[in-house]
Amino acid sequence: MPSYISGYFDGEGCFSVSISPRPSLRVGWEVRPSVALSQNADRREVVDLVHAYFLCGTIRRDSSDRTVKWEVRSLRSIVDSVLPHFDRWPLLSGKQSDVALLARVCLQMEQGEHLRPQGLIEIARLASTMNPSGIRRYEIEEIETSIPR
Amino acid sequence: MPSYISGYFDGEGCFSVSISPRPSLRVGWEVRPSVALSQNADRREVVDLVHAYFLCGTIRRDSSDRTVKWEVRSLRSIVDSVLPHFDRWPLLSGKQSDVALLARVCLQMEQGEHLRPQGLIEIARLASTMNPSGIRRYEIEEIETSIPR
Repeated sequence: MPSYISGYFDGEGCFSVSISPRPSLRVGWEVRPSVALSQNADRREVVDLVHAYFLCGTIRRDSSDRTVKWEVRSLRSIVDSVLPHFDRWPLLSGKQSDVALLARVCLQMEQGEHLRPQGLIEIARLASTMNPSGIRRYEIEEIETSIPR
Repeated sequence: MPSYISGYFDGEGCFSVSISPRPSLRVGWEVRPSVALSQNADRREVVDLVHAYFLCGTIRRDSSDRTVKWEVRSLRSIVDSVLPHFDRWPLLSGKQSDVALLARVCLQMEQGEHLRPQGLIEIARLASTMNPSGIRRYEIEEIETSIPR
């Protein structure tokens, strides 16, 4: 079963880090890690199974494209529940590099680096190398020029 | 590893039966079972791994959409190499019903049913319930009305 879940995530899973403007934060940007899995609503069994397996995350129906999406955004849950699984049962494709990058970002967030200008820039650079990346080059430049030094 | 492969196929695999006009055959239609897996060319590792695991099928690059596709069309290979795997490590979603339907079609083909009018109709009906189906309702009617009795 654990190995089955890794195989499923290798095809359908998404490991990402998004960075969005957030004026209320001192650095002006919010870092949000995410692990997600989508499936057509008419065969959501594996999404439910993944939810029950990891014991975290939320399931959301998207009525526009009739999919069901499981997603974990909590740093605590990603670090405690999700990453240890993929450490023990890694993906066998290049997507495992996204897992490794997400793990590095989460580690830096646990040390509060996302709240410090230099740390934020490093996280943005790491995130930009992930696929699919929520961060584009111009956004990194925007982050670098916008944050207080 | 076997379980990983089943998890991957649950998301990305495709089990199908296509039926196409073939005037050279007495029944006028050719039945072609298929097991396939596609992936973006830039992370084809799992496709290669699946090829090496099943020891059958072919890998084809589709330059139009930059994907790599592994596919088995040989009845012998599907029956001897692919189906036993999914019998022992079944898919955990509703897609397993496609595997079961493909297995029934292959069994009937081994008995030569696809070369007989009544067998062909039964196969076409089974195939039409698969998802994604290569056969639409009007095609079944076309088959039923076209074959010699």
